[in-house]
Amino acid sequence: MDYDRIFKAAIDRLHSEGRYRVFIDILRTKGQYPNAQCFAGHNGPKPITVWCSNDYLGMGQHPAVVAAMEEALHSVGAGSGGTRNIGGNTHYHVELERELASLHGKQGALLFTSGYVSNEAALSTLGKLLPGCIIFSDELNHASMIAGIRNSGCEKKVFRHNDLEHLEELLAATPAETPKLIAFESVYSMDGDIAPIAEICDLADKYEALTYLDEVHAVGMYGASGGGISERDGVAHRVTLIEGTLGKAYGVMGGYVTASTDIIDCIRSYAPGFIFTTSLSPVLVAGALASVKHLKASADERTAQQSAAALLKAKFADAGLPVMPSVTHIVPLLVGCPVKAKGISDILLAEYGLYVQPINYPTVPRGTERLRFTPGPHHSAEMMDELVGALVEIWDRLELRLAA
Amino acid sequence: MDYDRIFKAAIDRLHSEGRYRVFIDILRTKGQYPNAQCFAGHNGPKPITVWCSNDYLGMGQHPAVVAAMEEALHSVGAGSGGTRNIGGNTHYHVELERELASLHGKQGALLFTSGYVSNEAALSTLGKLLPGCIIFSDELNHASMIAGIRNSGCEKKVFRHNDLEHLEELLAATPAETPKLIAFESVYSMDGDIAPIAEICDLADKYEALTYLDEVHAVGMYGASGGGISERDGVAHRVTLIEGTLGKAYGVMGGYVTASTDIIDCIRSYAPGFIFTTSLSPVLVAGALASVKHLKASADERTAQQSAAALLKAKFADAGLPVMPSVTHIVPLLVGCPVKAKGISDILLAEYGLYVQPINYPTVPRGTERLRFTPGPHHSAEMMDELVGALVEIWDRLELRLAA
Repeated sequence: MDYDRIFKAAIDRLHSEGRYRVFIDILRTKGQYPNAQCFAGHNGPKPITVWCSNDYLGMGQHPAVVAAMEEALHSVGAGSGGTRNIGGNTHYHVELERELASLHGKQGALLFTSGYVSNEAALSTLGKLLPGCIIFSDELNHASMIAGIRNSGCEKKVFRHNDLEHLEELLAATPAETPKLIAFESVYSMDGDIAPIAEICDLADKYEALTYLDEVHAVGMYGASGGGISERDGVAHRVTLIEGTLGKAYGVMGGYVTASTDIIDCIRSYAPGFIFTTSLSPVLVAGALASVKHLKASADERTAQQSAAALLKAKFADAGLPVMPSVTHIVPLLVGCPVKAKGISDILLAEYGLYVQPINYPTVPRGTERLRFTPGPHHSAEMMDELVGALVEIWDRLELRLAA
Repeated sequence: MDYDRIFKAAIDRLHSEGRYRVFIDILRTKGQYPNAQCFAGHNGPKPITVWCSNDYLGMGQHPAVVAAMEEALHSVGAGSGGTRNIGGNTHYHVELERELASLHGKQGALLFTSGYVSNEAALSTLGKLLPGCIIFSDELNHASMIAGIRNSGCEKKVFRHNDLEHLEELLAATPAETPKLIAFESVYSMDGDIAPIAEICDLADKYEALTYLDEVHAVGMYGASGGGISERDGVAHRVTLIEGTLGKAYGVMGGYVTASTDIIDCIRSYAPGFIFTTSLSPVLVAGALASVKHLKASADERTAQQSAAALLKAKFADAGLPVMPSVTHIVPLLVGCPVKAKGISDILLAEYGLYVQPINYPTVPRGTERLRFTPGPHHSAEMMDELVGALVEIWDRLELRLAA
């Protein structure tokens, strides 16, 4: 049995499609983000500017977050030492769950080691507990939701992206007595568009469906206290489960779900991906708690981030670069070819010290490969001008398509 | 559709079986572990002694680990800000993977956010890449391995625990041209027994199977440099993949696999649970790196831990308590009933300030419910005497069965 040949062939397939991934080896510089150091390849080591972090607001370097983590590190140590049930349930976990439940106006919350695990564990567990449940899933849902739905064993009906008519058609074709769950995101991170949450809740009411909303790219970013699009739109109370992350706008790591006491208790009690894993380090939990509290009280970071995104979009458009339509903080430039997307990214890093990762299949559909920029409060207008200048030069050099 | 009723019924099932879990709300005290604070319930808040942590060696409070985390926190900040491919690949990650590959004598290593995710992602990906693969799985494998095997879509053949004859019988009954993978653990954490790794590798050679070894309860604990049972037995080079955790003996958080360059590259490139998730916080990675390096050079913690485990087993046996046979650092006491196991644990915490979690189904088979103690270098003989005295009193009070 030539196992080596099989593994080599699997890697060759990626090379031949131009989507073999090379990880860029960096260290951010606390207090100076988006500045960082690039270690290997592309003429490194050298200073770079990061344009593709999901630490959207720079909270990973916020003094309150860092201070809380340092305090926890010195009070209780590095790790939790166990699962939530066996020695790994610290008071920080309890406090953060209370804070997150309050953030979304829900009775309860549950922490996971990542947003991926929270989606996988919550959706698969809900699906297993509801006999004969059918899950209605937006076609652009994240890989973690797809994994959770698949692992639930439920029948899945995929509706066209943000398409209310198609969703209703599928709901109407399902017997009234069948349990139903509609799973969708608020901000779709690769296109930057937003789901019609209220209208989806209307359909959920009409057809007696539960709703599961992934807000990972929105928590901390939207709503008066950072509760996401569901808070901004005043519809959080209508959504059954809201899922979020502590690793993007909150700048730390981990994921969570919020819902009614009973639903949280069910996930807590039945999800293997929750039960059988060491809990989040109390150091992370303390940092996330400080971050959530800060962004509940302060809108400064959100406002500055929205301004930065608007400015960069305008600068891209003015320069004739093919910026994709986005109603959010996400700023994607369409390239449409994995090899070219990687080529632009390589030149930006090697020649300009500007770091933006190409986004290729399977993260986005083939033919829609892109560069995805995430300007934040710490990206200045001068940095943007430098970026635009570099992109225009590369677009010209590689004879790429400009905006229509 | 009465969804509430369904969720309530699911929780009632747990109550009626006596296995509804109540999380004990604690804070460990860095520098004074196993001492901690218990916050809620059981007459808290009050000081307690932790007897059930998987921070087996107390590395979570080791000065080298804490210093490395503090340094990383101040250099780069709280979180990584992205997936490994999109902005979240720090130099710490690269260094730790190099260190872990070296620890196990493998070409490469890959970090995950948890040991659970590493097993799920690695096994499911391997199984998908090997056409028609059959996975041979020890019946006591951890939930995360079971999830990975199920998600691989492969046929699974379960062999009786550590039973070489049964494993060979199943291998022999499978066509030679079928890809095969044997998945097992070194130390089984709930019983404390050890797999015959060399003999399993003999069978793997004979029947041309790959081998996947979970060493999460052994890394840092066994072998001259903490490489686990496979290092202790001199067989690490014969195992295809070795999986481990950074959240138990290493005292931090996270998981990993080590294997050949091509296998690691395949998992890195194809596993959704790796690709689509924010990478480990550099703070954790820095701490884990310090911990792995320390335990590579120092055997003091391992030796002290083994002495503590041997002493506690002897004290339990002398007192007539039903200590289960264990050839490792795990010290389980058989109770055999979920309600009684929880009852003993509750009394220990409420009346004696001693914290050991009852281990009930589904973590162990029904009828084998137990208390599982993990004495470490920081548990003194006096602490053990206090524990034994308390247990003997409770055993007597509840009229429990003593050792035969």
